[in-house]
Amino acid sequence: MGQKIKLGVFLMGSGHHIASWRHPHVQADASEDFRHYQEIAKIAEKGKLDMLFLSDGLSFNGLSHPAELVRFEPLTLLAALSVVTTHIGLAATATTTYNEPFHIARKFASLDHINGGRSAWNVVTSYYQTEASNFNQQSHLSHGLRYDRAKEFVEVVKGLWDSWEEDALVRDKAFGVYFNPDKLHTLHHQGSYFSVKGPLNASRSPQGRPIIIQAGSSEEGMNLAAQTADVIFTAQQTLEEAQAFYKTVKEKVIEYGRSPDDVKIMPGLSPFVGHTEQEAREKYQKLQELIVPEVGLDLLSEYLGGFDLSGYPLDQPLPENIPETNGNRSRRELLINLARRENLTIKELYLHVAGSRGHRIIFGDPEGIADQLEEWVVNKGADGFNLMLPSFPASLNDFVELVVPVLQHRGLFRTEYEGKTLRENLGLPEPEAQFDKRQIRV
Amino acid sequence: MGQKIKLGVFLMGSGHHIASWRHPHVQADASEDFRHYQEIAKIAEKGKLDMLFLSDGLSFNGLSHPAELVRFEPLTLLAALSVVTTHIGLAATATTTYNEPFHIARKFASLDHINGGRSAWNVVTSYYQTEASNFNQQSHLSHGLRYDRAKEFVEVVKGLWDSWEEDALVRDKAFGVYFNPDKLHTLHHQGSYFSVKGPLNASRSPQGRPIIIQAGSSEEGMNLAAQTADVIFTAQQTLEEAQAFYKTVKEKVIEYGRSPDDVKIMPGLSPFVGHTEQEAREKYQKLQELIVPEVGLDLLSEYLGGFDLSGYPLDQPLPENIPETNGNRSRRELLINLARRENLTIKELYLHVAGSRGHRIIFGDPEGIADQLEEWVVNKGADGFNLMLPSFPASLNDFVELVVPVLQHRGLFRTEYEGKTLRENLGLPEPEAQFDKRQIRV
Repeated sequence: MGQKIKLGVFLMGSGHHIASWRHPHVQADASEDFRHYQEIAKIAEKGKLDMLFLSDGLSFNGLSHPAELVRFEPLTLLAALSVVTTHIGLAATATTTYNEPFHIARKFASLDHINGGRSAWNVVTSYYQTEASNFNQQSHLSHGLRYDRAKEFVEVVKGLWDSWEEDALVRDKAFGVYFNPDKLHTLHHQGSYFSVKGPLNASRSPQGRPIIIQAGSSEEGMNLAAQTADVIFTAQQTLEEAQAFYKTVKEKVIEYGRSPDDVKIMPGLSPFVGHTEQEAREKYQKLQELIVPEVGLDLLSEYLGGFDLSGYPLDQPLPENIPETNGNRSRRELLINLARRENLTIKELYLHVAGSRGHRIIFGDPEGIADQLEEWVVNKGADGFNLMLPSFPASLNDFVELVVPVLQHRGLFRTEYEGKTLRENLGLPEPEAQFDKRQIRV
Repeated sequence: MGQKIKLGVFLMGSGHHIASWRHPHVQADASEDFRHYQEIAKIAEKGKLDMLFLSDGLSFNGLSHPAELVRFEPLTLLAALSVVTTHIGLAATATTTYNEPFHIARKFASLDHINGGRSAWNVVTSYYQTEASNFNQQSHLSHGLRYDRAKEFVEVVKGLWDSWEEDALVRDKAFGVYFNPDKLHTLHHQGSYFSVKGPLNASRSPQGRPIIIQAGSSEEGMNLAAQTADVIFTAQQTLEEAQAFYKTVKEKVIEYGRSPDDVKIMPGLSPFVGHTEQEAREKYQKLQELIVPEVGLDLLSEYLGGFDLSGYPLDQPLPENIPETNGNRSRRELLINLARRENLTIKELYLHVAGSRGHRIIFGDPEGIADQLEEWVVNKGADGFNLMLPSFPASLNDFVELVVPVLQHRGLFRTEYEGKTLRENLGLPEPEAQFDKRQIRV
């Protein structure tokens, strides 16, 4: 295999499992403790993992996941983590629905200068009503309009990142010349959603521009990702589903004139690692027993687009009539398909969801976990994985100490970072600056 | 003297003097070098200074100050500096004109959790046309409306910071209870500019809430500051002007039902320190000689509200007919008064402005500098100073190594930090949470 497996760590307070905070060995207030995140970052970097990833939400999310009730804002946390790491990528989520492109372009440029080219922006659209209410809105934009706005938003951000050519800032002390105005480019963007003149007050990123991540699995989401993303996060449960998604997206990438290797597809994965598979399953069972029923049911309701399940018997299958959502459609569909396929009751489904938040769970000893990772990558279901570790730091320690050496031994994972920037470590090409090209054409 | 002098360091790339980047001992690309800021932070903390302060701008500012052309975004830079410091306060500017209160409340709350209660928010309004053009606007709001918006903005941010009572997050593992809903408060703000439901997804700040700084010297600016600020930055040139401002503001503070000690007034000050006053003046002269005339003239034009001076003879006084501005009115007025009072030519005025960016410049040996600081504080012109050091790190080193020991010896400045939070070190009282009070009233 030419390409190594790419591995991200999805940061989340005490862990991905919804009851992880109740585990006796876990720090319950981890979601606002910087030292906790610092420890995770150091373990992940010791394991040579590609990046730390932080999701986000612009509201208080009720009962959903304790690690999301109160938490760090991603750009401030990742800026702080930049100082205590040297090689690992740092990826932050920021929504295109309730932000302005100038702020986002600038904050990620600043982060990228602080950490020497290790930043990534996870581009999302917002769909929670609770977010709209914090930003002067009665309701959120429809799914299609959110993606229209997102597409233009990304275009503006990329344009702003290209404001300064790499050698624009000459800083000639003798002649008193700070920059070369011929190498400064003003965007003058006028679009349907945004009017942004530019230029950006940050010089060109050490990695050309920050990495762009997307996670949409809807038609609009896949199109946007195929056009603009360097990394795609996804959530398939079976190899067949993953292969179908992988093939569709890579074909779309080619249609947009890009090389299929220029986009890395990384499904979410929640690995339970033990010295034996039995031990791994016991770790899972121990966490499952800590789930508070109301919390699990509420999380499931949310993932089904806000459909209220509280009236339905827990030992029966999902009702037939779950309506379409203006929220995350693909997650809703994945869960309904899973429940039908495996004939799960509501309780079984919420227990499943609570354990992995809708992502694939695997169990095994180190060799068994490595087998399952290898299978998906060799069979073109994934280029890597976004690890949704059940509890921090224990599950990350297990993965780094037990699984990473097996992957390295098989030649599937790096033993040293390939470069200093995230772009180099992901094996992605330097982006061309749009203004340089235009000038050459003139 | 009961209260010690408060001292802030105004961060700015290579230094405050506009030609500092040309100095042979100065790093010309300091404005985007994190290690440079880290070094400054460590020197300032060694000197037990109160805080580092970062101004901001949301646009490319033409020729004005090289340290402002490309630069770090304040919240990301200060989050990173949080990790390499332990006691010094970290103050970031964020405008109320092109931001949303939820984002600002959250980012400062996050920063405050990262650094254990050492954050401050410098509340400003935007007036540059170049900023408006980056945020979908043809022109900026008028002066009065900007302050109306700012006032409501601060009110919303403070309300969001009070979302969670200090002991709201119980995290009871045994009972599976993460928080006490009776201690979570939803803001439900509906105002002229903002509709923000809340609550904030960040717990109460380690210092109650982040420190609020303001710098407006207009009538609206002073009113807003007297009502809501903990610290006021200002720019008087003479002790008489400073005393008048100090008296007016402290009286307004009392009118709003607050104690005059609860607001610290800190004028900007650009100190040139030498082993002798002569050496200090030579340092100034050396930097003055490096000023590029077009840059100095452009900066002066900007400070006069965008009035184009390029047609006027440099060896004559300012023209009479400089129109009112919708920008920073008080700075314009200060400069016009200074030029009239000292009978300066345009060239002398731009040389003066370029040296200190419109702030007071003082020269002296360590005792002489200490005398000038003491004079203003004893005579109620200031509670402290925001140091606008001509070049980094040299001028900061001079101040910390030569002046701080003199101030300490006179009992005017701390020898150890009083506490862990910025609020403790500034000697400010714990803020009352608005929701707790309301509940007690019911």
